[in-house]
Formats: sequence, structure tokens, C-alpha cells
Amino acid sequence: MPSLESPSVAAQLAVATKDTASHVLIELGQRSYPIAIGSGLLANPATFANLPKADAALIVTNTCVGPLYAQALQNALQSHYRQIHTVVLPDGETHKNWQTLNLIFDALLENACDRKTVLFALGGGVVGDMTGFAAASFMRGVPFVQVPTTLLAQVDSSVGGKTGINHPLGKNMVGAFYQPHRVVCDLDVLKTLPARELSAGLAEVIKYGPIADLAFLDWIEQQMPALRNFDASALAYAVRRCCEIKAQVVASDEREAGLRAILNFGHTFGHAIEAGMGYGAWLHGEAVGCGMVMAADLSQRLGLVDAAFVARLRRIVVAAGLPVKAPVLDAHDNAGRYLALMQLDKKAQAGEIIFVLLDGPGKPVMRPVPEALVRAVIAAACA
Amino acid sequence: MPSLESPSVAAQLAVATKDTASHVLIELGQRSYPIAIGSGLLANPATFANLPKADAALIVTNTCVGPLYAQALQNALQSHYRQIHTVVLPDGETHKNWQTLNLIFDALLENACDRKTVLFALGGGVVGDMTGFAAASFMRGVPFVQVPTTLLAQVDSSVGGKTGINHPLGKNMVGAFYQPHRVVCDLDVLKTLPARELSAGLAEVIKYGPIADLAFLDWIEQQMPALRNFDASALAYAVRRCCEIKAQVVASDEREAGLRAILNFGHTFGHAIEAGMGYGAWLHGEAVGCGMVMAADLSQRLGLVDAAFVARLRRIVVAAGLPVKAPVLDAHDNAGRYLALMQLDKKAQAGEIIFVLLDGPGKPVMRPVPEALVRAVIAAACA
Repeated sequence: MPSLESPSVAAQLAVATKDTASHVLIELGQRSYPIAIGSGLLANPATFANLPKADAALIVTNTCVGPLYAQALQNALQSHYRQIHTVVLPDGETHKNWQTLNLIFDALLENACDRKTVLFALGGGVVGDMTGFAAASFMRGVPFVQVPTTLLAQVDSSVGGKTGINHPLGKNMVGAFYQPHRVVCDLDVLKTLPARELSAGLAEVIKYGPIADLAFLDWIEQQMPALRNFDASALAYAVRRCCEIKAQVVASDEREAGLRAILNFGHTFGHAIEAGMGYGAWLHGEAVGCGMVMAADLSQRLGLVDAAFVARLRRIVVAAGLPVKAPVLDAHDNAGRYLALMQLDKKAQAGEIIFVLLDGPGKPVMRPVPEALVRAVIAAACA
Repeated sequence: MPSLESPSVAAQLAVATKDTASHVLIELGQRSYPIAIGSGLLANPATFANLPKADAALIVTNTCVGPLYAQALQNALQSHYRQIHTVVLPDGETHKNWQTLNLIFDALLENACDRKTVLFALGGGVVGDMTGFAAASFMRGVPFVQVPTTLLAQVDSSVGGKTGINHPLGKNMVGAFYQPHRVVCDLDVLKTLPARELSAGLAEVIKYGPIADLAFLDWIEQQMPALRNFDASALAYAVRRCCEIKAQVVASDEREAGLRAILNFGHTFGHAIEAGMGYGAWLHGEAVGCGMVMAADLSQRLGLVDAAFVARLRRIVVAAGLPVKAPVLDAHDNAGRYLALMQLDKKAQAGEIIFVLLDGPGKPVMRPVPEALVRAVIAAACA
């Protein structure tokens, strides 16, 4: 069964963790759930109170995060579950596939887990997406909780119920819309994040500015040195504001029938970079950072934003420590390769690529674009 | 997006196919859909009118059914879709796994199918379950239509939105609840069914008697010779009555939170037989037939039904051409092997097996049972 919690669980959770966490509610009727944001949450049993009753829990983590936090999470869950199993996946986007997903099903069945077993995704976006899809599919649906440990996962991928795996021909091509019962953003874990991962997360933070909140973009621009310096209060505000914006968008369009696609700003070019370079060569956030600059450039070539805004967005992406020079994917027909990969994008319709563009700063729009302009953007970005 | 058709699609379909089909409606609010039952439906373009608009369709079939009916279905779809692709899967339960499922995703992506592409499942339960799960998962959900070509699929597996694949440790362990947009039961295709497949389908037909409709059980008993002789009007009534009962059960409990589990009468023992013998050795219907007799025997040992009813059910199962002697799964610890496999059943909770029993003919109940009684049933059935 999917989440049947009442929204009051958010209130209960708020009481249980009142000293350490603030809360953002994702309002989706019976599938509503809270995002808890704060310090020391992962190791606190109160964080995991009032989840659906179950005999067993399965922690899904990876070889990088597991050694750091799996034991603390297991201790926190001890009072809630009779049995707690753990499965450790290989780390990285290159493993976001069937073979790795099956390791989760193997662990569930080898431990005779049942339809009530709760899955806990402890890791970044790859662990979260795969655990969510495993939860959506195991016995046709069991509850799960997101415990994101990267900035990117805290501000974006763990919220909103998009789950899935990659196919060799396209990113996130196989998956489900399946909401977690709770998201737990422990800000302390960001302290152990490698600088490159922090920068990748900042790409998704920046994204919310041009599509939804220009004041937030101003704030990001000012706070970039603090953010890159792992400043706790700056990161806390960034995580909270991103979750608030995402909560609003997801609540109005859970299954991406329309508005939600604006969250893919920069992702059409970005997914082509990720797939074309081979998953894992560029981090998702790096590809999105570069892709946002390309999408802004495309918007400018359509006369929708001015050159000053494109230049500003590029400066912010560079300041986050992200690449803005796009990779050459094919020495003979680079633009052709980009176009072929983007035609497989989930927003494409009947072979036509639909881009998320800016019709002025803060005003996302979606539309197809003449191919010549797209080729010009690719040529400029790769030069 | 999932089905967003209005129920009036059933009415439109009824008009379009008024001379050849009758209709049963599965009422699930916005996910409601019609089952069309009749002759000549598969080759009739009107059968597929008013489905969600799309540029492309993908027919999923297998090596056995494809050569018989794929061309006719493709012709019928020609006026509705600009592109019609076909993927042919290997035949049989043994192929109901990730590798085969991936052939569907490969076909979708190699043909640059998009989020609106409609999948058509042309085949038996295995094709239907896998196509449904592929539709649930491709780009997180595309529409699909069931065109079941076996009696078992027409009366049971194509209706109600249970989709999935097997795991080496358990049947249908990975999947989704995902409703089709339409089910098309063309009675003509049953004429080409091998006798063994017809008998397997009759197991699920018989099932609806003891759990829901004793008058229907009387009818089945009387009509068994006609049914086994492929009598068109007897099969038409059987398909229609089964779909009516299933529609009622599914409408009241789409995601098997309670009542719907009664449809698994005979399936707890049956799944153990299928998994224990290796998928495909026994047909699903054969295992269910034998499993129903075992579940009835277990009900009798609990004092819930009398011996006469168990003997009658056994006679009906035998008359359908189905086995009632259960296979020995382990020469050293047969009951132990059965129990271990049944502990992995999706109805199990915290390691306790929950059986669907009869608390008198026509009155299904679900409960755990003392292990000694289960062992006695297995010993008797395997003797």
C-alpha cells in the first residue's frame, strides 16, 4: 500500500524533533509527507517515530556512505523494528541499473521481508532513486523513507517521488512516481561531502532561482562563498528554501502533466551530456549546471532573456565550481549526437524535443525550438 | 500518466462494437475502464477507438501468439497510430523476468517511443503481466491495453491491474498495481488454444465458484464437457461471469488491502508448486487447480467445510483436466520445502503464512493456520 498517513504525522514529528528540526510538508492528499530538516536527525530515534508499523526494515546504502552512517541509522531504528537488515550497493551513477536494483530485491527476499517492510534510502540521488523504485515494485509497493546524504539529494531528488533507473539509451527511463513516507535531511552529513559533490548539489540549488525565485537567486549569489565553505546556516537555509519551492511545484503537479517539468530546467542538455559521456563521467549536477547555461543561451537566442542574464547565470554556475564548457560527444557530428540523445528525453513528443526555457528571468516556459538554434547553442557551449 | 478516461468511454466503445461485444466496466473512478467481450474484436478497428491519442503503438507478443494474431491486430490499429512497432518475447513463465522485460524497454527506446506511446499486450498472462509492468515503468508510466489470448488471461490476469515479473525466490515479487485503459477479450482466439492451456484457464474459472458464486459453480460443473469442447457460448458466458465477479472485487479493493486477496484462493499452495518445480514446469492454472483442492482440504481439517464439498471441488478440478496430486518438491523434507516457499508469499506477515480458506462453500476467509495441519495437507496431497 502507498502512504496512508494523515498530514498530522508532520505535526507529531515536529513535536518529537522540535529542538533540532524544521519541517516542510509535501501536500498530496493521502500521500502527504513531511521533510524534516535539521541537525542530528539521522541518529535520533524520534526522527523515525510514527512510520507505518512493521516487523522489519531494510537500510539501502552504498559503499561510500554506508561506512559513515549506516550504523548510526541502524541504532536510531532499533527501537522501531524487530529486524533491521542492510544492503550495500556499489557507488555511482554507472551502477543505477537493473543489476544493482536486483541486489535490493535479493536482500528483501533472502531476509523473508514482507509487504509491510519499510525501506530506508541512505545515500545520494542514485541510492534514493533506486530504493524508491525498489519500494514501488517490491510486492507491488512497500513504504520507504528517504535519508538523503548529499546536497543534491536533499534539495532535489529525494523530494517528490520520482524514482527509477537508467537505461543504456536514456537516463531515468524506467521507474515510477512513488512518494516516500518521510524525507529526513540531516544537515550534519553534508560536512563529510567532497567539494565536487557539494558543487554538484549547488547546481540544483541555483536552478530554483531562474525558474521560481529571483530573490533566492540573489541570495545564492551573495552566499556562494559561504555555501562552498560548508557554512551550516547557509546550507540550512538553502535546503529549506529549495524544499519549499519543490513542495509547491510537486503538490500542484505530482505526475508531471505540466508545470512540474520546469524542474527539468537545464536537464535536457544535461541528460545528453551524462548519457553521451557515459554515466558517472560527469556528475548529474555538473551536467545540469552546464545544461542550465545552455538553456539560458537558447532562451536568449529566441529573444526571451537578455545577454546580461545569461552572463550572470554563467558566473553563478562558475562560482559554484561547476563546468560551463560542454563536452564534445562526437568528433564528427557533435550536434547530431546531442540532438539524438535529447530526442530520447522524456519531455520529447513524437520525436520533437521540448525545452524548458526562460521567458524572462523567473518565468519558465516549455516549447520546441528550431533545430538550427539548438545546434548554435551546442556549438557555442562546446567551443 | 495513468488512465484518465471517463467511464463514458465504455459507452462509446459499446456503440462502436455493438454487434459483436458485450461490456463489463471496472469502476475505479478516474482509472475506470471497460472489458469488451465478443467475437472478431481483435481485428476490428472500432475495438480500439477512443484510446488516449498517441503517435506510436507497441504490440508486445510472444513467439507462439505473434505469428497467429499480431498482423491482424496491427491492421486494426493502423487507422489509430502513425507508427506501430512489434516486439516478440520468448514464450512461457520461465521468461517472466528482468531480461525479457528489458526487451520491451529496448524496443521502446530503439524506436524513440515517447511518454504517450500505447502498449498492447497480445498474449497470455505472462505477456500481459510483463507488458503491464513495462507500461507502469517506462518513463514512469504510459497507457496500455490488454488483448488476452488465453482463457486464463481473459478471466483473470488481464483484469485488475496486477502486473509484474518473477524473482528466483518468488512469483510476481516485483511489479506494480497499474490499470490498463481497456481489456479486449476476443473469444475467437480461444479456438486456437491448446487443450492443456484451456484446462489451465478453467482452474481460474472454477475458482470464482467457491469464493463468490455457488450457482456459477453448479453451472461450471454442468457445462464442463462443453467448456472443454471449446463451446463458444459456454466460454462466452464463463468469461463474462468471471469478469463480472473480478470487477466487483477489484472495484472494492484495488490494491489488495483486504478483500481482493480472496482471488488468491489456491494460489498460496499453487505458487509454492510453481516456484518449487521451476517456473514453467507446471502451468500457473495447473498449480492453482491443485492448490485449490489443498486449500479446501485445509479448510476441512479446520472444520470449516465438509468432506463432501472438498470431494466435489476435487471432482470438478479433475473434470477440467487438471492435476490434483501435488508434486514432491524435496525428497528429504517435502513439507519443509513447501512451507519455506509459502513463507515468501506476498500475503505472509512477519514470517506467518496467511491462507485463503473457505468458511463454508462460497465464504472465503483469510487466516494463519497451525503448521501441523498444513503439513498434513501437503502429505495427503503428495501421497
